Amino acid sequence: MKSREQDTEYMKLALAEAQKGVGRTSPNPPVGCVIVQGAEVVGRGFHPRAGEPHAEVVALRDAGERAREATAYVTLEPCSHYGRTPPCADALIAAGVSRVVVAAGDPNPQVNGQGLAKLRAAGVDVEIGVLEAEATRQQAGFRSLVTRGRPHVIYKYAMTLDGKTAALGQGNGSVSGPQARERVMHWRNQADALAVGAHTVQLDNPQLTTRGLDGGRDPRAVIFDREGRTPPSALALRPGTIVVSTPSTNYTAPAGVTVLRAEGLPDALTQLGNLNISTLLLEGGATLASAFLTSGLIDEVRAFVAPKLLGAGLPPLLAPTRSMHAAQDLDVWSVEQVGEDVLIVGRLRV
Amino acid sequence: MKSREQDTEYMKLALAEAQKGVGRTSPNPPVGCVIVQGAEVVGRGFHPRAGEPHAEVVALRDAGERAREATAYVTLEPCSHYGRTPPCADALIAAGVSRVVVAAGDPNPQVNGQGLAKLRAAGVDVEIGVLEAEATRQQAGFRSLVTRGRPHVIYKYAMTLDGKTAALGQGNGSVSGPQARERVMHWRNQADALAVGAHTVQLDNPQLTTRGLDGGRDPRAVIFDREGRTPPSALALRPGTIVVSTPSTNYTAPAGVTVLRAEGLPDALTQLGNLNISTLLLEGGATLASAFLTSGLIDEVRAFVAPKLLGAGLPPLLAPTRSMHAAQDLDVWSVEQVGEDVLIVGRLRV
Repeated sequence: MKSREQDTEYMKLALAEAQKGVGRTSPNPPVGCVIVQGAEVVGRGFHPRAGEPHAEVVALRDAGERAREATAYVTLEPCSHYGRTPPCADALIAAGVSRVVVAAGDPNPQVNGQGLAKLRAAGVDVEIGVLEAEATRQQAGFRSLVTRGRPHVIYKYAMTLDGKTAALGQGNGSVSGPQARERVMHWRNQADALAVGAHTVQLDNPQLTTRGLDGGRDPRAVIFDREGRTPPSALALRPGTIVVSTPSTNYTAPAGVTVLRAEGLPDALTQLGNLNISTLLLEGGATLASAFLTSGLIDEVRAFVAPKLLGAGLPPLLAPTRSMHAAQDLDVWSVEQVGEDVLIVGRLRV
Repeated sequence: MKSREQDTEYMKLALAEAQKGVGRTSPNPPVGCVIVQGAEVVGRGFHPRAGEPHAEVVALRDAGERAREATAYVTLEPCSHYGRTPPCADALIAAGVSRVVVAAGDPNPQVNGQGLAKLRAAGVDVEIGVLEAEATRQQAGFRSLVTRGRPHVIYKYAMTLDGKTAALGQGNGSVSGPQARERVMHWRNQADALAVGAHTVQLDNPQLTTRGLDGGRDPRAVIFDREGRTPPSALALRPGTIVVSTPSTNYTAPAGVTVLRAEGLPDALTQLGNLNISTLLLEGGATLASAFLTSGLIDEVRAFVAPKLLGAGLPPLLAPTRSMHAAQDLDVWSVEQVGEDVLIVGRLRV
């Protein structure tokens, strides 16, 4: 029997394995697994993408015979049902694993405790809840898709220390520094989709791509455009891009671009969920973000605060609130210096 | 001979001693001293207020005979001139101290290296620069007064994660949490003066006092009021309060209140310096702070960022800038979570 501290250390390794799949597994969750025999890690694995083997199976293959009487650390409850692959709970039992430590339960109604029950019924010692908060955070997109049918929405912005995301004039420099901008590229690489408003497209004509990362891939670009303002020449209009329009808007998209006709933001997010988009990185502008906020559709905020005072400029939000009591509170997950900027990450309280 | 690490540890103790005098010593600096014999601290002292003994003298008295052949750690270069007290360099030599470690030189033209020279000439081993950045930060008010004839100005504010210091409506809740507000009381206790604009006085009628601290004292209240708008009933108008008016404004203050007739902000700060105000805590509002900023008169920023999204409200600054290139950069000194809020402290680059 290992101590709680040892369990935590091994679960950290399993979370690091899972991290390798983040942004590639949708609609499946990113999952990691390590197999520990005595004090030795004898197997590691992660789920690389939907349709490929689950983390447990990869780790069990890696461990081979040494999985017998070993402990398996898994970031998500092993599945108990036949999906595209056989149940992982069965694979763990068949390999002779004697103990399974799980970070978080699987909210999928087809699993939802049945994976744990199956393991226990086979005499496997089961523990759940080790680094649960970290795991559910890593699986936020999957969990949102399974329980709410819509993506986990992250509002990302950078502002000065006096709360401005851009100056009032044109052709301005960047708010945040190079390390912060590199971090954003990692987030884009890990998000299923990246959203902006049509006004931002008209104003900045952004590419909405992942740049400068080895092995990086572009998220699907999503343009919220109720009025059909996105010009055919917009750089963000590439195959796979989604334009969220309305049922009554006259808008014809170039070939390869998907047009969603949505009755408001909640409907739009449900339709994006139907396209297996589990995480949506919302990058602005303020009007679109405020519409998300007032609809209660922002789940997480990642805000860079740059150490500079501007004096005037555009704000991160533009909602018509009058009272501090109307403010929406966040639980802060982390505060970190990224280059010269301060990154504050938190989840909106529900 | 002690290692650099040991020197740093003892200097931290000396800085902690000095901290006890912060806000009480003006126009003198806060200074701390510890005397170390072998590995034992045999004497401690700090300068409690102008006219009372300097830190070195207090620590030497505490050490007595054990100061002989000891090392003295002093946060500021020992004085070499006869002021209200005899020179500390002489006292250290007379006590037989064999080594003196100094954090920062004294910019006062009457000292400015002569204290160190005097010690060296007497055969004392002298070292300077241990925790110099921390020491100069602690002495910022004194150093500003000596080198520029005006106080060190700290702009303090609290804003939401979307950059709002208050909601647009009246009668609103506080932006920051109780721990942040308690921290502000510590700052008020350590500042020589606390400044607001007349508009803030009219709107909020603040007391501008230090509340809830054992042994706390109120800073001098300073009201910037070019138009003579401060009503006689304002709570901040108490004996010692300063109203900064103009030469042409018709304003009569209640008894005990000082009226400065200043030709603009730089002149006002010089006049405040003449009143021995070495640190000025600027608490708003945005218009006054912007006037300070655009005149290049903000030295330090202490900004609380509260984890909440408001959507609309008042900004921390209201200056007419158009370009991000006009932003004034800060060197970040610290990033810290204070309760639920994030405190960012930095110095504006000159």
